[in-house]
Amino acid sequence: MKPQRKVPAVAVRRLPLYLRVLEDLAREGVEVTSSADLARRSGYSSEQIRKDLAYFGAFGTRGLGYDVGQLSQQLRRILGLTGPVPVALVGAGNLGTALIHYTSRNSRDAFVAAVFDQDLGKVGQEIAGVTVQPVSELSATVKELGVRIGVIAVPEESAREVFDQLCDAQVTAVLNFAPTKLERRQVSVQNVDLTTELQSLAYFALGAGAERH
Amino acid sequence: MKPQRKVPAVAVRRLPLYLRVLEDLAREGVEVTSSADLARRSGYSSEQIRKDLAYFGAFGTRGLGYDVGQLSQQLRRILGLTGPVPVALVGAGNLGTALIHYTSRNSRDAFVAAVFDQDLGKVGQEIAGVTVQPVSELSATVKELGVRIGVIAVPEESAREVFDQLCDAQVTAVLNFAPTKLERRQVSVQNVDLTTELQSLAYFALGAGAERH
Repeated sequence: MKPQRKVPAVAVRRLPLYLRVLEDLAREGVEVTSSADLARRSGYSSEQIRKDLAYFGAFGTRGLGYDVGQLSQQLRRILGLTGPVPVALVGAGNLGTALIHYTSRNSRDAFVAAVFDQDLGKVGQEIAGVTVQPVSELSATVKELGVRIGVIAVPEESAREVFDQLCDAQVTAVLNFAPTKLERRQVSVQNVDLTTELQSLAYFALGAGAERH
Repeated sequence: MKPQRKVPAVAVRRLPLYLRVLEDLAREGVEVTSSADLARRSGYSSEQIRKDLAYFGAFGTRGLGYDVGQLSQQLRRILGLTGPVPVALVGAGNLGTALIHYTSRNSRDAFVAAVFDQDLGKVGQEIAGVTVQPVSELSATVKELGVRIGVIAVPEESAREVFDQLCDAQVTAVLNFAPTKLERRQVSVQNVDLTTELQSLAYFALGAGAERH
């Protein structure tokens, strides 16, 4: 498994989807699968799946397919998901609170290790076992805990400042829910844009997709 | 613009990303762009972009590129985004509340027309101008308003029941935040899985991506 130097970010972002399909298969008791089967279940083409996996090495056996458990393990190792990953969350509003509950209930791969808010009225409150800290402590706490992933769940107007603080505290990957474009060299930013999700739904519900299919 | 019969859902889901890039370009005063430029800004390859657009017709002029304003308009029309689209939201918890605030602040394409919750303590409350209704009214209200898009922001255990109710009320597209697989013929389901987002971030922050690049 000798990875190529430069793997496209979009390929990396598909790996968790393949992982989810594999884990569904494992739960159903399926032990061996094919790229055709993964394609059917993931919505990506078999060529795409084979190409994505090829960035990370040679998997599966020609004519026999993929061992479900083995490929899951390999994807988890590639993704760095060998144990739950600590995340620093900024913003303890409705979205931030929902994220804390969500990860504490559903994610075995990530947990909110620290949460920050600029509203001193929220500081000291406990959300699913995590105590809200003031944003002024962000830098020190994130460095001390060695957290590398930040999640931005603050309003648009504070997003950039929070992003700079996270980067300065040596965070290297950011999940951004604010509708603001954030960029910094060496930092990977993933935007979750709910507008985009709703826009493509409109196609299926109301646009060409609903009328013509 | 004669669309082909069957457009892959993943291609449709990329259109809003291209639209966002185009609208960013327009804001910067750029009037003409190329697939190479769209590629650089969107993170998809120029081949992918040209292929995605080709599903919907012929755009741009060979050697001259795309007219930014015109292509935006065409994508909006394809997506069915000619005016704000009403959405029925189920679940007025933290996530649902965040979604209402989010769309009321940031989205000119979608608005929450009705919100439902099974907690009678929440019924009657107003969130950003939208009054929470009991889930028992879902079917009647959704049909009456003619809403075609549902958003599921309820806990995992209620997701399937809510989904069935939305489908029965003639919703044709669903954005699902619950970690439950939902399927029905003729209904397009888009899952927002926050675990997946965090998993690929781990790669960039901690996994192979951070060490080897």
